[in-house]
Amino acid sequence: MELLKSTIEKIKGLDEAAMAAAKDRMDNLIKPVGSLGRLEEIAIQLSAITSSIHPVVDKKAVIVMSADNGVCCEGVAAAPPIVTLMMTNHIANGVSGMASIAKTAGAGVVVVDIGVSADVQNDKVLVKKVRYGTGNIAVGPAMTREEAIKAIEVGIEVAREQIKSGVKLIATGEMGIGNTTTSTAVLSVLSGVHPSEITGVGANLPGDKIKHKIDVILRAIETNNPDKNDPIDILAKLGGLDMAGMAGIMIACAASRIPCVVDGYISTVSALLACSICPTVKDFLIPSHASFEKGSALASQLLGLRPMLHMDMRLGEGSGAALAFGIIDAAAAISKDMITFAEAGIGTV
Amino acid sequence: MELLKSTIEKIKGLDEAAMAAAKDRMDNLIKPVGSLGRLEEIAIQLSAITSSIHPVVDKKAVIVMSADNGVCCEGVAAAPPIVTLMMTNHIANGVSGMASIAKTAGAGVVVVDIGVSADVQNDKVLVKKVRYGTGNIAVGPAMTREEAIKAIEVGIEVAREQIKSGVKLIATGEMGIGNTTTSTAVLSVLSGVHPSEITGVGANLPGDKIKHKIDVILRAIETNNPDKNDPIDILAKLGGLDMAGMAGIMIACAASRIPCVVDGYISTVSALLACSICPTVKDFLIPSHASFEKGSALASQLLGLRPMLHMDMRLGEGSGAALAFGIIDAAAAISKDMITFAEAGIGTV
Repeated sequence: MELLKSTIEKIKGLDEAAMAAAKDRMDNLIKPVGSLGRLEEIAIQLSAITSSIHPVVDKKAVIVMSADNGVCCEGVAAAPPIVTLMMTNHIANGVSGMASIAKTAGAGVVVVDIGVSADVQNDKVLVKKVRYGTGNIAVGPAMTREEAIKAIEVGIEVAREQIKSGVKLIATGEMGIGNTTTSTAVLSVLSGVHPSEITGVGANLPGDKIKHKIDVILRAIETNNPDKNDPIDILAKLGGLDMAGMAGIMIACAASRIPCVVDGYISTVSALLACSICPTVKDFLIPSHASFEKGSALASQLLGLRPMLHMDMRLGEGSGAALAFGIIDAAAAISKDMITFAEAGIGTV
Repeated sequence: MELLKSTIEKIKGLDEAAMAAAKDRMDNLIKPVGSLGRLEEIAIQLSAITSSIHPVVDKKAVIVMSADNGVCCEGVAAAPPIVTLMMTNHIANGVSGMASIAKTAGAGVVVVDIGVSADVQNDKVLVKKVRYGTGNIAVGPAMTREEAIKAIEVGIEVAREQIKSGVKLIATGEMGIGNTTTSTAVLSVLSGVHPSEITGVGANLPGDKIKHKIDVILRAIETNNPDKNDPIDILAKLGGLDMAGMAGIMIACAASRIPCVVDGYISTVSALLACSICPTVKDFLIPSHASFEKGSALASQLLGLRPMLHMDMRLGEGSGAALAFGIIDAAAAISKDMITFAEAGIGTV
């Protein structure tokens, strides 16, 4: 709890002076004002985060939080829980979807076992297990409040280590069979929207099982009855260790003034939790893709972040965030490489 | 005319066998079937274009067609025509918006003077001038039919040279003050939609001048009365040398079986012309961003290409296409770096 508290205390908002200076320079680059749209907004945000007119985001990492979810025993996922362990290894070994994408962006991949049910035997996986999977939320809490906080602090620690090693841009990713169920339960409580409106297929759950998934989520909310004004209570009772870890990453990024790219559905719900814990975190978040998962649009809307990539993706792992790295590189590049009208010796276009 | 004819004759459709093999492998990679969405579609398209299960798109170039538009004398653009020359130099010198973005994607930039009104004095610009700017479409044709074909053939030649030098992925870009006016005139004829529905601000034309811009476009269509079933007639009478050059690039890419990324508004209208000349060209096109320019959504819809990047950009130059290079790299990477369930020694997820 001490680490979470002290980290939150370090979080300050955007550097308004740097933001104004960046905006002014952006409006004087050799292009019609505003014509680079959201690329300009990101460039200005990067300046406001890093207090630099020429923000640098060269060294990047996707941090993947892997954890199992006890609710899988209710038959809410198409894949068996063992797939969490398998995919944790595949991601770390660089042969998964996100790992392939991250490589093209020149980004590192850090895989964290924050709660896989089995023991991970892979030197490339950082073992920071808080517990062996969560409890079944349909019959009780996912974890204790202390475990939820500890998992958030794991996220903080891992992000800090990356930042210490020179990483300038972090993306959140996850691996955990059953985590669209936990995320939807959390989102339903945070938004007040009924699970039937936001429950999707996850990793190809057959259509005839969706009603059952909705019923399980409803039962989880009813059984646990979380305090909707207490994000850590919601997380502990209905969430997952992956979500806690990702919320921790975002909080650490805000404290260290490092931009953090939010992946799709699970990441966005985790961002909602992080911002409920500390609203200023939002200033440090950059959206990526619009996940195809049903609840994703609501989650993005609640968070107030508009996804840039419309790829109909729903893989998770941080795949959409890794794909957005190129956009953020481009935003930094326009700040660095474009010249102003004055530098070009001409009037405005 | 001979080059255009012989190039079109070389165009064959997608390699159906390669496409089927790529689709089969894609469905067996270690991810839920379909979970990488449009990234999977692009990967399969790349295979179908290149007849390879592991398509390579390492060497990339944005080809920028620069040309002036006589219609500028009607006061339809916020910037004076001299900006075409200035920006042509800035793009070639690597300090423009697109040039900055292309650098982050490791892509080359080829700037072609296909019709700038002034003489370009820059070794980095390829001079292939068909004429010094077009005529004012409000009072007569932009160019002759022969000039339109010659400009298409310049596009074919330049693209071919790039492909010969090893370029595996090409994007179209343009620079030409006044070219949202010409594009909108062409789009209006191709679509049958009234200019008032699709005329936008271009490079920040003041709101009170939009009505005038619409009137000029209406006058251009009325005066020139192009044959709507003859894309070259529409191009010659209402289009621009930049648009002709870009259509030529797309036709050459299709003939050489090289994927071609379509940028925003002007590029998409050029793609409509290219596909009107030879419909099979469409199989070789990859969309990029949804331009903020008003007519862009209609142009993309008519072409049947759904933009992936929603960045509110409207700079032109090929900036949105350059931003999409990273996505296409990622698509190629999932084909190359991901393993199948069989290779992983497990069943399907």
